[in-house]
Amino acid sequence: MPELRKDPVVGRWVIISTERSQRPSDFKHQPDPKGAGFCPFCAGNEDKTPGEVLAYRLSGSEPNTPGWRVRVVPNKYPALRIEGALGERSAGMFEMMDGIGAHEVIIETPDHQATLATLPLRHVEDVLWVFRDRILDLKKDGRFSSALVFKNHGAAAGASLEHPHSQLIALPIVPKAVEEELDGCERYYRSHQQCIYCAMIQQESRARSRVILENAEFIAFTPFASRFPFEVYLLPKAHDASFEKAHREGYSYLAAILQDVLRRTLSLLNDPPYNLMLHSAPWGEECEHCYHWHMEITPRLTGVAGFEWGTGFYINPTPPEEAARFLREMQEPKGG
Amino acid sequence: MPELRKDPVVGRWVIISTERSQRPSDFKHQPDPKGAGFCPFCAGNEDKTPGEVLAYRLSGSEPNTPGWRVRVVPNKYPALRIEGALGERSAGMFEMMDGIGAHEVIIETPDHQATLATLPLRHVEDVLWVFRDRILDLKKDGRFSSALVFKNHGAAAGASLEHPHSQLIALPIVPKAVEEELDGCERYYRSHQQCIYCAMIQQESRARSRVILENAEFIAFTPFASRFPFEVYLLPKAHDASFEKAHREGYSYLAAILQDVLRRTLSLLNDPPYNLMLHSAPWGEECEHCYHWHMEITPRLTGVAGFEWGTGFYINPTPPEEAARFLREMQEPKGG
Repeated sequence: MPELRKDPVVGRWVIISTERSQRPSDFKHQPDPKGAGFCPFCAGNEDKTPGEVLAYRLSGSEPNTPGWRVRVVPNKYPALRIEGALGERSAGMFEMMDGIGAHEVIIETPDHQATLATLPLRHVEDVLWVFRDRILDLKKDGRFSSALVFKNHGAAAGASLEHPHSQLIALPIVPKAVEEELDGCERYYRSHQQCIYCAMIQQESRARSRVILENAEFIAFTPFASRFPFEVYLLPKAHDASFEKAHREGYSYLAAILQDVLRRTLSLLNDPPYNLMLHSAPWGEECEHCYHWHMEITPRLTGVAGFEWGTGFYINPTPPEEAARFLREMQEPKGG
Repeated sequence: MPELRKDPVVGRWVIISTERSQRPSDFKHQPDPKGAGFCPFCAGNEDKTPGEVLAYRLSGSEPNTPGWRVRVVPNKYPALRIEGALGERSAGMFEMMDGIGAHEVIIETPDHQATLATLPLRHVEDVLWVFRDRILDLKKDGRFSSALVFKNHGAAAGASLEHPHSQLIALPIVPKAVEEELDGCERYYRSHQQCIYCAMIQQESRARSRVILENAEFIAFTPFASRFPFEVYLLPKAHDASFEKAHREGYSYLAAILQDVLRRTLSLLNDPPYNLMLHSAPWGEECEHCYHWHMEITPRLTGVAGFEWGTGFYINPTPPEEAARFLREMQEPKGG
């Protein structure tokens, strides 16, 4: 019997198939063939991107030349424009504003072949510090009210370049995905005087069935109402609304659990396309007490899903308890 | 300059690209090749589907034999099961229930090559009457609180069989897409004492820039905050919460405008994959005053969209005013 499950934060119902449950080997994913063409993100090609806004680089090396470990540039084809006023206006019942926002690319390494799963741990930590530095900088811009960091890995997850990179957008509005979480957090806080994600961590820690692994500061589990097979949440165990305010050791623990989860996922599912999203508190809202930042990792194994397009409803053929067990039992593969 | 637009009902922001606006010819869509294999939905193969729950057929013809015009069968691979109790239960903060629901297939015609765009108008009307009959029947089942009718046309829109068909699911819960609309409708009604869709129809009718066409009872326009290129809304002009309560002539006018819009869309965009969704009032809610049923037609032209996956944010490269102009200016192509 399939099961209908409700996401406790946003109220979304999903269908979890329990009868014809799909195991990792049922997903016939073939890794993308590696391209041999020109790559604008590789070391030596710095002049093929817009000028860098931040780089962690060898002291003494010049901006926009080799010598960097992590490099941030404006997206060459930005969805939003960085310059201008918001121009908020309305026409009858409709509201709109100019498409102002930052759209940046975080080039995670000069090495085309490396990934967050294979880079030295210290390098993964650098990438997280870069996320933090860019968010803190953009937060100073009074036009913006939130930032989203996300990563598309593999063509089926929307990556148009294979060189390892993430993207950051800063927006003058709060995106619906975060707004809905915030509403759910506020509702739960009003009735329970507790952060809903803190409560979820407590319940998952007791039940164990969906926990993949944890370290001193972070926990990784498959969410109860997972929309996608092998979807994973990563959360700080202590209450914390904002990714960018984490303390120094936090990024180190996050790098460790993130790399571990990615290694297990990539090894188990044969380097699947995946998206990674960082959800952190919007900047203008009073939500320190009730919001809890987290990362969501969603492999894209199920292809175009007509049922979801047609209904807004998710069908997940792999119960999250099964997914967690597979991920838990993986031997952590060695990195490169 | 791109424009950020807010959907007035659900509050979703979308980015409308205005600079590199994409015209119909920019979407390099190739129609799916037509398969020559066995089709379980064709006349003569009635024994290859589960037994019919409804058919409009020649008087005297036997169930599950040829002679039908429109035929409804349970989905052979249902996402939900029709038999059983809901078994609502909880585990700590989590809520779940058994995956009970109806999942039916409406085979729109015995003719494999026909489509809603080419069938005689009277036949399209029959299909709409079948939607109505099935909804009214399932509404009697006290376990269900809403039904969704949807259509996936083309592989990229999720269709696994090319024979023209729609699907219906009846659910023990209200799907999030409809719930969000309902919330928006109630909010607007409280502050304006008017149905938000009625207000939208008034504003669009005055502005004209997004209107494609209308007849005595229906209007078709591209929504202000369209998520996808050439997305179309079809609404009854008079306030009406429930599709299944429309009066007899209503289905005739709907068939006419639906076929006209599909002919224009298919001809303009070279038979694109598309989804059609019918949003109608949930059954248990007091929302007759504020909800307004409608159809949404969304061509799937932009492929997998990493930005959307990563952020929950939509980028639409074709402003709806442009899309409406193209669709308005199409000569209505002749049907088959």
